[in-house]
Amino acid sequence: MTAATPLTGIETPALLLDLATFDRNVARLRRHLDALGVSFRPHVKTAKSIDLARRLFPDGTGPITVSTLAEAEYFADGGITDITYAVGLAPEKIARARALVARGVSLGVLIDSIEQAHALADAAADGAAMPGVLIEIDCDGHRGGLLPHDATIVAIADRLRAGGVALLGVLTHAGESYNARGGVGLPEMAEAERAAAVAAAGLLRDAGHACPVVSVGSTPTAHFARDLTGVTEVRAGVFMFFDLVMRGIGVCTLDDIAVSVLATVIGHRADKGWILTDAGWMAMSRDRGTQKHPVDQGYGLVCAMDGTPFPDLIVGDASQEHGILTVRPGSGATLPDLPVGSRVRILPNHACATSAQHDRYHVLDDGGTRVAAILPRIRGW
Amino acid sequence: MTAATPLTGIETPALLLDLATFDRNVARLRRHLDALGVSFRPHVKTAKSIDLARRLFPDGTGPITVSTLAEAEYFADGGITDITYAVGLAPEKIARARALVARGVSLGVLIDSIEQAHALADAAADGAAMPGVLIEIDCDGHRGGLLPHDATIVAIADRLRAGGVALLGVLTHAGESYNARGGVGLPEMAEAERAAAVAAAGLLRDAGHACPVVSVGSTPTAHFARDLTGVTEVRAGVFMFFDLVMRGIGVCTLDDIAVSVLATVIGHRADKGWILTDAGWMAMSRDRGTQKHPVDQGYGLVCAMDGTPFPDLIVGDASQEHGILTVRPGSGATLPDLPVGSRVRILPNHACATSAQHDRYHVLDDGGTRVAAILPRIRGW
Repeated sequence: MTAATPLTGIETPALLLDLATFDRNVARLRRHLDALGVSFRPHVKTAKSIDLARRLFPDGTGPITVSTLAEAEYFADGGITDITYAVGLAPEKIARARALVARGVSLGVLIDSIEQAHALADAAADGAAMPGVLIEIDCDGHRGGLLPHDATIVAIADRLRAGGVALLGVLTHAGESYNARGGVGLPEMAEAERAAAVAAAGLLRDAGHACPVVSVGSTPTAHFARDLTGVTEVRAGVFMFFDLVMRGIGVCTLDDIAVSVLATVIGHRADKGWILTDAGWMAMSRDRGTQKHPVDQGYGLVCAMDGTPFPDLIVGDASQEHGILTVRPGSGATLPDLPVGSRVRILPNHACATSAQHDRYHVLDDGGTRVAAILPRIRGW
Repeated sequence: MTAATPLTGIETPALLLDLATFDRNVARLRRHLDALGVSFRPHVKTAKSIDLARRLFPDGTGPITVSTLAEAEYFADGGITDITYAVGLAPEKIARARALVARGVSLGVLIDSIEQAHALADAAADGAAMPGVLIEIDCDGHRGGLLPHDATIVAIADRLRAGGVALLGVLTHAGESYNARGGVGLPEMAEAERAAAVAAAGLLRDAGHACPVVSVGSTPTAHFARDLTGVTEVRAGVFMFFDLVMRGIGVCTLDDIAVSVLATVIGHRADKGWILTDAGWMAMSRDRGTQKHPVDQGYGLVCAMDGTPFPDLIVGDASQEHGILTVRPGSGATLPDLPVGSRVRILPNHACATSAQHDRYHVLDDGGTRVAAILPRIRGW
């Protein structure tokens, strides 16, 4: 296909991206973080696209956050030089991380145990360049990390110093913010995230470690933070696309969702109130992130081609290459008239998961009816 | 990496494939279908690998079933010449289907509406070659298709004949068999699937249509069918790998599962009873297919490197690149000692969904400790 192909002319299912909405989402969070006086290190695991990273950073060098070393390598290939790999480092990955440093990348890696500090210090014994290290802090019991007053934090820093490995600072992620609904409690979660990171940084400084970086972030807390005193940078990823989960959490509206899946109607079951499409879970992902929300969106919310949601029409069920559109139970809405061959746009529960099912973005033109460009995505590890 | 790399030396997460188990699974179903006197048309949406398709068919030409036209084109590129595309045909895909026929592929496409028959007949007016057509029959209310006695079946056949498009026959899929547990009811579901397809074929023949193909299949019903009189071929896909869902349904044992995800331990939360790995939902998929089973396997069942499951150790939760291993609630099992850097193998809920998260298989050698080969997979549409 060529650029400027009409949406009616591309193969389905296909991942659509509205760059005007993307830009608006990015500008909104930048404005908020600028006002709070902190720098911004977007998490590009959501985008996995060098073109979108360059749109985030007109000078093209970062800083960014990544979730895999494959992402780090890909974005470094594209000229990004300031990268934090924000998943706990497996010792076997040290050599690959060092290869990035040897290429000139300013790389930060994440650890939360003495074992990992030993492994890094042991590796550093050869005298070649090492990545800098962030110590993961747990602010809400969500995942990994050390509690902010755990003496292990200083023990790790001491071990790194003894081994000649640079400590960059501390990093935390308020993952429990994904369990908020309608914005309730998010300012408090943002403050707890800030307080945990700042406390851990204080512990390190009291023990004689500089701790220049105090990194926090999740999309919900980044938007609801009111004061980030002591924090140096904020990370967030899904904010750039937003999705139905973020809408349920209270961070965005439906109009803020920048990605959708284009699907074609392939059949009907009038007896069951079903419309079948060619966008199953392979196109939407298996993510059911709104399952426990007050508004369960199934596998996605169905919109007309102009992006307007049909009343209460969701992807009620999905198999590998079939989506079943149904009216949300109890809503009283009626099925729209969508003959075989009609096309719809489906908003995803989770933009990271849905986008990961696709190899490329179909970027919409200003009118939203044609494909202005194709942007590749990467995957794998 | 080179072939015969030890499993301890490859990057994680990684998709492992045990070909001996694959071969055993294939031989088991072939034997059963041979005894029932029907031919076998495996669904390669599970494998998405020409190497595995060639293993299924030593002569390399099929017959196979696919779920996308991209699969059809890929397998045709690899020499497969007999392909059924078993998802309802969007009219916009007719040209792409015809291009396969023009290349010499014997292609069957699936429809269940007069609108689709019109679209095919209209396309055929130019006189160039068309795919053959299968009419989708609903045997259990699971998805698309016409009820076996619906007069639309004959109307579609008449419309195709008037338009000069070849009718191959009827096709049904007992998707509700995925809701069985422990094998209960599966012989009856297999009989209902057979009966629906045979009844629809009878309707067509009574109306003067030949209906040479009577195609049925799902992995559960394929294994539990006791009599397939009137059926000409059986389709099944996930059987070649099997998975925890199939184990819960009662079609296989844990020993029959041919794919697993290799993961590395990256941290611990002793206070919470958690072991963290680098295999999150990006590596496992978001599939929670055992969520409503008597034995909920979380995002996967965790095994030692020799493939032996740890007692009741599951991936209790997952984020994009983190898996949280926990002991199954109420089991009384204890967490194994798995230091940072240890490796585990995780059995998936749904082999199709988990495999789709990976670009390649790491094929185990006979001892199960080294990678004997890398086989690429395809994706997309």
